[in-house]
Amino acid sequence: MRATLMYAAGDVRVEEVPDSVVKLPTDALVRITASAICGSDLWPYASLEPEAGPARVGHEFIGVVEETGPEVTTVKRGDLVVSPFAISDGTCEFCRAGLQTSCVHPEAGFWDGQPAEGAQAEAIRVPLADGTLVKLPDEPGPALIPSLLTLADVLGTGHHAAVVGGVSPRTRVTVVGDGAVGLLAVLSARRLGAEQIILMGRHPGRTSLGREFGATDIISARGAEGIAAVRDLAGGYGSDVVIEAVGTMAAYQQAVGIARPGGVISRVGVPQFEDAPVGWDSLFRHNIRLAGGPAPVRAYIAELMPDILNGTIEPGKVFDASASLDGVPIGYQDMADRKVLKVFIRP
Amino acid sequence: MRATLMYAAGDVRVEEVPDSVVKLPTDALVRITASAICGSDLWPYASLEPEAGPARVGHEFIGVVEETGPEVTTVKRGDLVVSPFAISDGTCEFCRAGLQTSCVHPEAGFWDGQPAEGAQAEAIRVPLADGTLVKLPDEPGPALIPSLLTLADVLGTGHHAAVVGGVSPRTRVTVVGDGAVGLLAVLSARRLGAEQIILMGRHPGRTSLGREFGATDIISARGAEGIAAVRDLAGGYGSDVVIEAVGTMAAYQQAVGIARPGGVISRVGVPQFEDAPVGWDSLFRHNIRLAGGPAPVRAYIAELMPDILNGTIEPGKVFDASASLDGVPIGYQDMADRKVLKVFIRP
Repeated sequence: MRATLMYAAGDVRVEEVPDSVVKLPTDALVRITASAICGSDLWPYASLEPEAGPARVGHEFIGVVEETGPEVTTVKRGDLVVSPFAISDGTCEFCRAGLQTSCVHPEAGFWDGQPAEGAQAEAIRVPLADGTLVKLPDEPGPALIPSLLTLADVLGTGHHAAVVGGVSPRTRVTVVGDGAVGLLAVLSARRLGAEQIILMGRHPGRTSLGREFGATDIISARGAEGIAAVRDLAGGYGSDVVIEAVGTMAAYQQAVGIARPGGVISRVGVPQFEDAPVGWDSLFRHNIRLAGGPAPVRAYIAELMPDILNGTIEPGKVFDASASLDGVPIGYQDMADRKVLKVFIRP
Repeated sequence: MRATLMYAAGDVRVEEVPDSVVKLPTDALVRITASAICGSDLWPYASLEPEAGPARVGHEFIGVVEETGPEVTTVKRGDLVVSPFAISDGTCEFCRAGLQTSCVHPEAGFWDGQPAEGAQAEAIRVPLADGTLVKLPDEPGPALIPSLLTLADVLGTGHHAAVVGGVSPRTRVTVVGDGAVGLLAVLSARRLGAEQIILMGRHPGRTSLGREFGATDIISARGAEGIAAVRDLAGGYGSDVVIEAVGTMAAYQQAVGIARPGGVISRVGVPQFEDAPVGWDSLFRHNIRLAGGPAPVRAYIAELMPDILNGTIEPGKVFDASASLDGVPIGYQDMADRKVLKVFIRP
C-alpha cells in the first residue's frame, strides 16, 4: 500500500510501505477514504530532524472497515467510520470520564508517533477499535464527508477549547489564530451561544470564513495594538474567554494580554515551549485561569455529529483544497506557505 | 500612634508614626483591636531591600470604627469591623462579580503597598470603607475574635483555593503547604465535602492541626517520593484538585507532579517566580488546569462568618502565638524560624 512519510523538515514523500494488517484481536483494518493535513503537521514539517525520520504522518481519517479482530464488537466489515486523533480503549476511568486523550491502556496514544501507521495513507491498522472508532451513517453523501472528517480533530478541538473555556451565552470570547482550529473554535463558541466572538487574524480568506462561522468582530492588529483593540471591543477589560489556537509564545502572550480579570485562557494549540509566564504579572494578579490540552474529541462526536448531519453546522468549509495521496507533499508546502487553509486528501 | 515598619529584610521595628486620620469622604478611621502576621509577610521579611523600606506592614485586622467620612453609609462609629486584605469599592463590575481583588477604582488595591497605612498598628485609615469593611456582630466575645480575624485573609484564601479548584464531595484534594493558608484550605475542602484531603507537610504540630481540620492523610515526603506517595493514595493517577499554598517553584513542581489528568492546580501562594512549566510535559498533555490568584475574601465573608459564629468551624486555631505591638518584631522572627505558625497581635 502507499503511505506518506516525513523524512525531515520540508521533505514529505509518498511511498510503498508494507500493507497494514490486523495484528491483535482488538484491531480493525480500515481502508481510508478521506484524510487531511493538519495545522499541527506543520510543526514537524518545519523542524523534523533527519535522524527522527522517516515518520508516518496523518491523524485524521474516515474510512471503511475492511477487517476486524475477533474481539471487536462495535464496528464490522463495511462500516463507514471516523477516527479521533487519539487511540483509546473506551473503558478506563479517564475514557469513562470523557478524557480519552489520557486513556491509560498500554496501546492508547496519539496517531502521531505510531511507528508503523499514519492516516495520510491508503489503509491503517486501528488498535482498540471499539474504543477508538465511531461508526458514521451508512451513506452520508459525499457533500457531508469533509464536515464529518472534522470530527476527527479540528471541530472537536475547537469545541474542546470552547467547553473548557466555559463558553456560554453570557461570555465574550476572543480567538487567537485563524487556522482551521481557530475558525472552528469560533463556530463552536457561536454554537454554545457566546454573545461576542472576536477573531484575531489577518488572512482575509480565513477571517471571512470566521465571520461566516459566527465571529462578530475581526482584529488584524497584533501585539500591544491588537491587545488594545480587543480590550476596547470587549468592554475595556478584555475577554472572559480567550481561545489560544496557535501554540506559539507570541500567541500565548497575546492571550495573556487579552484575558479579562477572572477570565480563562483556553489553549488547544500544542505549545511550542515549556515555560511561560504564569506569575503575578501575567495570570496570578487577576485570577486568570489556564485550561486546555489535547481535545478528547471521541467524547464530543455524539454531540457534534447530529448538527453536521442535519446541516446546522458545516465545519467542512475549512477545507479549501483537496489532493490525492500524490498531492500530499505539495499540500504540505501550500499549507506551510499559507496558500491554503487545510487540505482534504482522497487517498 | 504606633505602627510596625519594615526597614529591610530581617529588620522590623515598631515606631511612632503620624496618626491615621480620615482624609476622603469615603474613608473610615478604625482603631485596630486585633491584627496578625501573615505567611506572605515573610517574603519581604526575607528579601526587602533597604532602599524599598521602611514600609508599613500588615493586612489583616479587626477593629472599631472611630470616625467615618460623610459619604460612608454601611458602617458607623462604634461598629466592630473586619477588613479584607484588599481595598475595593463594592460597586464596580468586578466587585459585583465577586472579584473584589480586581476592583478598578483608583483607590482600590492591597493593604500591602499602601505607603502610609498598615494593619500591624494602632489605627488605620480605610479608603472606600463601604466597599471594604464588613460589620461584625457587636459583641462576638473574645474567644471568637481569632477565628473572625481569619476572614480578613487566611480563611477566605483557603476557601478561594477550594472554590476555584472546584472542590465538591466527589473530589480528591491534595494541599501542598502546611502554613495557615494550607491548613485552612484543608478546612475549606472539608467544609465543601471533599472525600479525600491529603496534606503535604512535615511539621508535626501543623499536620496534627491539619488532621483536626479534616485532612484524611498526611504525606511528609517531598519531591519524587512525595509525588509517588500522593499518587498512590489518590488512586494511582493523582488528585483531582491540588491546592498550592506556598508559592515557590518547588511547590509548583510538586503540584504538577500530583495533579491527575483533567485535574486542576489551584494556587493561592503568591508565586515567587514569573515563568513556570505549562507546556506539553507539565500541564498541556493531560489537560491539567491552572487556577487561582489573590482571594477576593470580601466575597466570601457573608458565607463563612455564620459558620464561625455558630461554631461549625474554628479557623482561629491557626494562631498559636500572640503578641502586643512590641512583640511584633520577635513574632516575625519566630514565624520565619517556623517556631510558631501564626502570630495574633493585640495592638
